[in-house]
Amino acid sequence: MLKNVHHINLLVRNLDAAVQRYQQTLGINEMLYGDLSQRGVRTARFRVGETWIVLVQPTDPEGMPGRHLAEHGEGLFLLSFEVDSVADTVSEIKARGGQFRAEQPRQGLEDWQVVDLDPGQFFGVQLQLTEQASLPDK
Amino acid sequence: MLKNVHHINLLVRNLDAAVQRYQQTLGINEMLYGDLSQRGVRTARFRVGETWIVLVQPTDPEGMPGRHLAEHGEGLFLLSFEVDSVADTVSEIKARGGQFRAEQPRQGLEDWQVVDLDPGQFFGVQLQLTEQASLPDK
Repeated sequence: MLKNVHHINLLVRNLDAAVQRYQQTLGINEMLYGDLSQRGVRTARFRVGETWIVLVQPTDPEGMPGRHLAEHGEGLFLLSFEVDSVADTVSEIKARGGQFRAEQPRQGLEDWQVVDLDPGQFFGVQLQLTEQASLPDK
Repeated sequence: MLKNVHHINLLVRNLDAAVQRYQQTLGINEMLYGDLSQRGVRTARFRVGETWIVLVQPTDPEGMPGRHLAEHGEGLFLLSFEVDSVADTVSEIKARGGQFRAEQPRQGLEDWQVVDLDPGQFFGVQLQLTEQASLPDK
């Protein structure tokens, strides 16, 4: 059902400072940028193996990432698994008793279609599913 | 320098309850168990792609994971990158200005030899390097 760890999100207060630290200290050469205005974040990401490490700076204190930063501070924020079909996997997880923040996928970065599980059910961890296929109307 | 995301640790208060939830809800069939008494934890892990997802229950409130749980609660705890050689990578990261909790590797689960970076330098994220080769004297 879960193919790989598609991406891991790290909340930071200052994206530019974080990018500089990761590039300099860990020798990350390629960094890709992307904003998600509807989510209220700026992001920069780099790839390690089959996984994207996404540095996320909230720009809207009222958005979910902004509220999480205010409550919990910087750090590991979200773990997203790649699946072949978000719709099919949501159905299967629901049938197994799983719950979601919202069952309708939202548009993530690039062509990532994402749906968030209920962190209350997973001991404080924000789990997510990603399908690499844009939503039709985006 | 960083080959892949070797493992991700999730702190939980009750390992058995977490195992049951992950197995039932996400259809995880194979779960491997391992205790690390010197670290003061019980663990259970499952594989997603090239990454181990490790559920960690502190058994020693004075150990580092136990203190982290008391301070921050359950949730994503640690992100470990696989490298070919921990010793070589520590040297390279130090030359780039990186700092470590301790530069000498410690024995992790199985044949994982791990070294922890300084989370203060990485915006609250506990990063780690893993080499899959047991320490000689363990």
